Amino acid sequence: MSTFLTILGYNSAIPTVNSSPTAQFLEMEERHFLIDCGEGTQVQLRKAKARFSKINHIFISHLHGDHFFGLPGLISSFRLLGRETPIHIYGPKGIKEMLETIFRISQTHRGFEIIYHELESKVSVKIYEDNRLEVFTIPLDHRIYCNGYLFREKPKDRHLNMAEIAKYPEIEICDYHNLKLGKDFTLSDGYILKNEKLTLEPSKSVSYAFCSDTRYLESIVPVIDGVDVLYHESTFLHDLKEMADYTGHTTALEAARIARKANVGKLILGHFSNRYGDLKVFTDEARTVFSESYLPKALEPIKIG
Amino acid sequence: MSTFLTILGYNSAIPTVNSSPTAQFLEMEERHFLIDCGEGTQVQLRKAKARFSKINHIFISHLHGDHFFGLPGLISSFRLLGRETPIHIYGPKGIKEMLETIFRISQTHRGFEIIYHELESKVSVKIYEDNRLEVFTIPLDHRIYCNGYLFREKPKDRHLNMAEIAKYPEIEICDYHNLKLGKDFTLSDGYILKNEKLTLEPSKSVSYAFCSDTRYLESIVPVIDGVDVLYHESTFLHDLKEMADYTGHTTALEAARIARKANVGKLILGHFSNRYGDLKVFTDEARTVFSESYLPKALEPIKIG
Repeated sequence: MSTFLTILGYNSAIPTVNSSPTAQFLEMEERHFLIDCGEGTQVQLRKAKARFSKINHIFISHLHGDHFFGLPGLISSFRLLGRETPIHIYGPKGIKEMLETIFRISQTHRGFEIIYHELESKVSVKIYEDNRLEVFTIPLDHRIYCNGYLFREKPKDRHLNMAEIAKYPEIEICDYHNLKLGKDFTLSDGYILKNEKLTLEPSKSVSYAFCSDTRYLESIVPVIDGVDVLYHESTFLHDLKEMADYTGHTTALEAARIARKANVGKLILGHFSNRYGDLKVFTDEARTVFSESYLPKALEPIKIG
Repeated sequence: MSTFLTILGYNSAIPTVNSSPTAQFLEMEERHFLIDCGEGTQVQLRKAKARFSKINHIFISHLHGDHFFGLPGLISSFRLLGRETPIHIYGPKGIKEMLETIFRISQTHRGFEIIYHELESKVSVKIYEDNRLEVFTIPLDHRIYCNGYLFREKPKDRHLNMAEIAKYPEIEICDYHNLKLGKDFTLSDGYILKNEKLTLEPSKSVSYAFCSDTRYLESIVPVIDGVDVLYHESTFLHDLKEMADYTGHTTALEAARIARKANVGKLILGHFSNRYGDLKVFTDEARTVFSESYLPKALEPIKIG
């Protein structure tokens, strides 16, 4: 299964006619994840023709409005659309009190369960795991408690090299499972066939790191090391470095430095301050440090890995 | 000053790509009122090129999400845009707890004051008055406490009939104020000039009634009697009368009956269930009872009076 990321919105703070606040839809190993949920996200999901009824896990980076004000409405719409499947919400401590207060006073009755995973850890922790993938927090440094999220496929099974296997009638179908896991095969005469002879390298496990609002923070480098795609905020250009520090944000140059240090495949910038017109200035600055720097394109799914 | 109503959204429940939930922008006597604030309202205000920084009074009918989930984001944007003027919010009891919980947990700091006017009355009460206009609640019958709002210009001053006044040199400029207020003028010889001789009828005072989610409710008729324009929800056609009663809504036929009984100038329907495609069926049904029934047009200001 391919991994696709659809950026639904990437502007900072104030929604405008042509741009939406932060929200991303990630399809990975047949899981459908929503990452942040600024106001208007449910309409962006519709525009993207995303199968949003399939979303069972929502990850909120922090509780500033431009990253979650769309969440109460999305939950309400799930109810109106007849949802019954439980939904998991991951976010900073406080998210439960806020949502439950809204639902209590607005008398929003739900036909499905919300399972809250409130986060407080200041070090990276695994918050989700199934047989195919894992999700970890990426603790960030913003004005308020904030996490990025790392989505990583688990190592995959090796591929069978059927041309080689065919040479050994002793190897039966029931042995394939062990071969895929990397085990050697011992022939009846005691000869050990090395796994590498019978199998090919597994498909690459893809990984995606979402780094929401943060100051320049080198401690994230080992956490996101080698990811295929890194989304990193770059609210300002580097001439406003002081403003970036003061407001808890990163410059395009700094985001590129993080990308280079972490040897990521590709960097997507975002969360640009409304003061900038032509966004090309961000990639111009970032590419002086890291050539694989790109602007986001809203609503266009991009393949990862 | 003319009165203009801009309907920003009028669909029910779920925002879609082409339609927005309830919100209206009313300009009356140089006041700028926002009525309800569904998710995405701030973007609709931008699309309408409404001068939304001038909004000082927001009226929320009830605390279902499709009528107020855009409010936290709008308040945040006011802050980001540097607002300092206090804002008045009128709405059901509970609105303060909900908004203040959101602002506390999201650490939304405000540079301006929010003055809450929490409503509980089950009879119509005056909630706003200045020298030119008044606003009254219109208690409705929904699944949750809900008010419509009546906006009414006060009676205006009479116009001076300068051709007549010129015939009496005794009448000086300082007398004009009393003439405008309707007082007679006594000449020095004791002869009383009737006010009607010296003045002309005042300009008409316009009025607008917004009736949000409600079952058919005849008790509103005396409150909205004779308004120039009535917006009344009509979520269903009359063949789904039972569904309308059950969910706390009105049919197009019933909205038209209210309009006729109240002798309103014009009826605008809205809040249509998503099950309907061509909305013309609503005016077709309503016009069998009240010919001046119309569909709303989003973002197009209409002149009232």
